[in-house]
Amino acid sequence: MPRNAFYAQSGGVTAVINASAQGVIETARQYPDRIGTVYAGYHGILGALHEQLIDTSQEAPETIAGLRYTPGGAFGSCRYGLKPYEESTLQYERLIEVFRAHDIGYFFYNGGGGSAVQCAQIAELGERMGYPIQAIHIPKTIDNDLPATDCSPGFGSAAKYTAVSIAEAGLDVLSMALTSTKVFILEVMGRNAGWIAAASGLASHDEVRSPHLILMPEVAFDRDRFLARVRHYVDSCGFCTVVASEGLRNADGSLLSETHPLHDGGRPQLGGLAPVLATLVRSLLGYKCHYAIADYLMRSARHIASRVDVEQSYAVGKAAVELAVEGHSGVMVTIERVSDDPYQWRTGTVPVSEVAGRERKVPPEFISDDGFYITQAARRYLQPLIQGEDHPPYVDGVPAHVHLRRVFAPQKTDTAFNPDF
Amino acid sequence: MPRNAFYAQSGGVTAVINASAQGVIETARQYPDRIGTVYAGYHGILGALHEQLIDTSQEAPETIAGLRYTPGGAFGSCRYGLKPYEESTLQYERLIEVFRAHDIGYFFYNGGGGSAVQCAQIAELGERMGYPIQAIHIPKTIDNDLPATDCSPGFGSAAKYTAVSIAEAGLDVLSMALTSTKVFILEVMGRNAGWIAAASGLASHDEVRSPHLILMPEVAFDRDRFLARVRHYVDSCGFCTVVASEGLRNADGSLLSETHPLHDGGRPQLGGLAPVLATLVRSLLGYKCHYAIADYLMRSARHIASRVDVEQSYAVGKAAVELAVEGHSGVMVTIERVSDDPYQWRTGTVPVSEVAGRERKVPPEFISDDGFYITQAARRYLQPLIQGEDHPPYVDGVPAHVHLRRVFAPQKTDTAFNPDF
Repeated sequence: MPRNAFYAQSGGVTAVINASAQGVIETARQYPDRIGTVYAGYHGILGALHEQLIDTSQEAPETIAGLRYTPGGAFGSCRYGLKPYEESTLQYERLIEVFRAHDIGYFFYNGGGGSAVQCAQIAELGERMGYPIQAIHIPKTIDNDLPATDCSPGFGSAAKYTAVSIAEAGLDVLSMALTSTKVFILEVMGRNAGWIAAASGLASHDEVRSPHLILMPEVAFDRDRFLARVRHYVDSCGFCTVVASEGLRNADGSLLSETHPLHDGGRPQLGGLAPVLATLVRSLLGYKCHYAIADYLMRSARHIASRVDVEQSYAVGKAAVELAVEGHSGVMVTIERVSDDPYQWRTGTVPVSEVAGRERKVPPEFISDDGFYITQAARRYLQPLIQGEDHPPYVDGVPAHVHLRRVFAPQKTDTAFNPDF
Repeated sequence: MPRNAFYAQSGGVTAVINASAQGVIETARQYPDRIGTVYAGYHGILGALHEQLIDTSQEAPETIAGLRYTPGGAFGSCRYGLKPYEESTLQYERLIEVFRAHDIGYFFYNGGGGSAVQCAQIAELGERMGYPIQAIHIPKTIDNDLPATDCSPGFGSAAKYTAVSIAEAGLDVLSMALTSTKVFILEVMGRNAGWIAAASGLASHDEVRSPHLILMPEVAFDRDRFLARVRHYVDSCGFCTVVASEGLRNADGSLLSETHPLHDGGRPQLGGLAPVLATLVRSLLGYKCHYAIADYLMRSARHIASRVDVEQSYAVGKAAVELAVEGHSGVMVTIERVSDDPYQWRTGTVPVSEVAGRERKVPPEFISDDGFYITQAARRYLQPLIQGEDHPPYVDGVPAHVHLRRVFAPQKTDTAFNPDF
C-alpha cells in the first residue's frame, strides 16, 4: 500500500522554491504504487502541527506546472524551529499524531541549514518513537551558505538579479556622473556570507567595470581604505558603483548598519547599511551619492531567475522523491559540479547530520588581495550559476503567477496544538 | 546639400532613452540627401558647448540597433540647463560657433520638461541670432509628468518594473507573514507626481491584492489614517504591502522623508521615505516591517522594459527626424492615444512652448476616494503602457549591452568653453 507524503517549505523563501515543490509533486505522481497523496504544510511545519494539510492532489496539473514561474512560498513558509528532540518530545508526539492520522510515510523538508537539523530529527522518529518515516531534506537558500553542496538552489537567481541590476544601474550612473550622481551603492542580502554581493562581480567585463567595489562580510570594513578606493574610481572612471552585503561588519565585529557613520557630529542613521555608506561618501568625499536597497525584491525576482537555478531547484525536488522511493532517509539532496566549462552538474546526497551547524562563507581564494573584489577563481565558480533565462509567461504586462485552490485535508485529530509552548 | 544633425540626451536617463537615439540615427540614415552626419553630444548639451561631438556614423549598424536593449544614456547625459536667452547670450553664441563649425542644421533634444524650454530657445536662434536651425524635442521621463502627451517614453518601463516587483515581493511576504514580516514597503521614484507608484496598482487582481496601499504625493500623508489602513490589511489579509512615492508630503507640504517619524522620542531618520514609514509601522503597530528602495534600479531596468514603451521611445525619435525633414521646428513629438482597448496610439506634435513649465500630476479621478489607491479610470489609462515584453539578448547570464566606439569629430573651433560662467 502506498503511504502519503508531507512536503513543507521552511524559512526565508526564494524566487524558485516553488520549482522544488513542483519537482516533488510531479515526481510523486509518477509513483502511485509507492506514494499516495502529497500533502503540503500550510506555512511549513506549522501546517503539520496545526493539522493544516493542503491536499496537492486537488490542484490541476497546470497549476503545479505553473509553480515553476511563481515566486514566494506557494504553500506558505514559516520561521519556526522544532526544538531538539531531547528538549521537547511534545512537538514530535504531535507530529506523529498528525502524520499517523494521515498515513504520512515520507517527509520532504525544503529549507536551509536550520531546517536540515530538524529534518535529521524527523528521520530518527522511527528509531526513537516507533513511527517509521523517511525524511529527505531539499536545500534552498538565496545565501548559498549551505555546506556539502556545490551551490544552494535559490542562490543563482538572487545572484543573477544582483549582476543584472548593477550592470544596468552602472550604465545609468556612468551616463549621469559628469554633472550628477558619482557614487551608487546597492545593498543586497547576506547577513554572514557575501555570496550574493560576490556574484555582482559577474556584471563586470572588459568594456565596463561595474561594480567597482564589492563589500562582503568576510572582510572587515575599513573606512579609510574604502573611501580611498571610491575616490580612486571617481578620479579614474568618473564614477564608482558599490555592491555591499547587508551584514558588513567593522573590525570589532559590530554591524556597520548599526554604527553611526560619522564620529564627528552628523545625525545617527537607522536601518540599513547603504545609508551609512552613503553618508560617509557624501560627508567625507563630497560626492553626490545614491543608493538602492534590494531587500525582498531580490529574493522574489522570479522574472529574472537563472535558468540553471530553476532547473536545479526542480531537480532537487525530483531527486528527493526518487531517493525516498529507493528507500533513503536522513539525507539532503546536493548539487555536485562535474565541470565548470561547459558547466555540468548532477544531484547527489549527503547525510543531513553533515549539514547541521555549518555555514559556508566566501573562501579567501575567491576574494581579491585588496578585499574589495572577486578573483578569477570566484568567477569560474559563480559564472555557471547565473546562466540562462527562464522568462515567465505574462498576462496584462505582469507575470502570470499561479494561485492554488488550497483544499485542506479533512481534520482527523480532535486536538488543537499550541506551538508556543 | 544635406546639413548635419546634433542629438543630445538631457536630464535623468531612462531604461529606454537609447531606443529614441536609435530611432533618430536609423531614420536619419534613410535621408542621406537631407541629413548628413548625426553628431551626438557627449554628456548632452555640454558636448556641444565643449565641442565634444560623437560621430555616430562611426558606429556599426549592429551597435546602433543594440541601443534598443541598452539602458542609461549611451552618449552621456547631463543635468545642465541653458539659461534663458535674455540672461546669457554667451552660451548661445558658443552653440552657434560649434554648430556652424560642424554645419549643424538639425537639433534633436531628448529630455523632459526643463529641456523642452531650452529646445524652444534653440528653435528661435535663426530669428534671434541669424543661425537657422530646426529644433525638435523628443520627450523622455520616467515620471510621466510631461503635459500635452498621453504618456512619456520611459514611464511605461518604470511602471512595469514597479508592478512586476511588487507582484513578486507581495507573494514573498504573503508566504512569510504568519511568523515573520507582515508589512513591506517599496519606495519608488516620483518627487512631485505619483505616476510610478500609481502603476503598482496594476499588480493587483482578483486573487491577490498587492500592493494594498499606494501613497502618492498628490495626497497629503495622514499618519493615523495610514496606520489604520495598514492594521486593517494585516488583520484581514495577514499582511500589507505598500508602494510609496519618494516625494510623499505631509499636510503642511514638508517632505515626509525629511521628518522625524516619531514625535515622542525615537531616533531621527535620514535619507529615504521608506525607513520613516517603516519606523511608524514598527513603533506604533508593532509589526515586523521590511522595505526596499528601488532608486536607480527602477530607472535602468531595461531587462523588464515594457514593449509598448520601447516602441514608443523608438517612434518619437523616428518621428522627430521625419518632422525635421518635413521642415518642422519648435515642436515636441507626442504620443496620442487613439483607443484604450485595444490599445492604439500614434505620434503627434505640440509646440514646445506649450510644454514649458507645466507638470502633469495624477488627476483626482485616478485616485480612489480614500486616497490610498487607484481607480478603474487609472487602470484603463495605465494598463496599456506596461504591455508586452522586449527581453534583451543575454551573454554569460547578463544582458548584452552595446558599448559605443565613441569617435569624436575633429575639433574645429580653437576656443575652450567654461560652462560655469
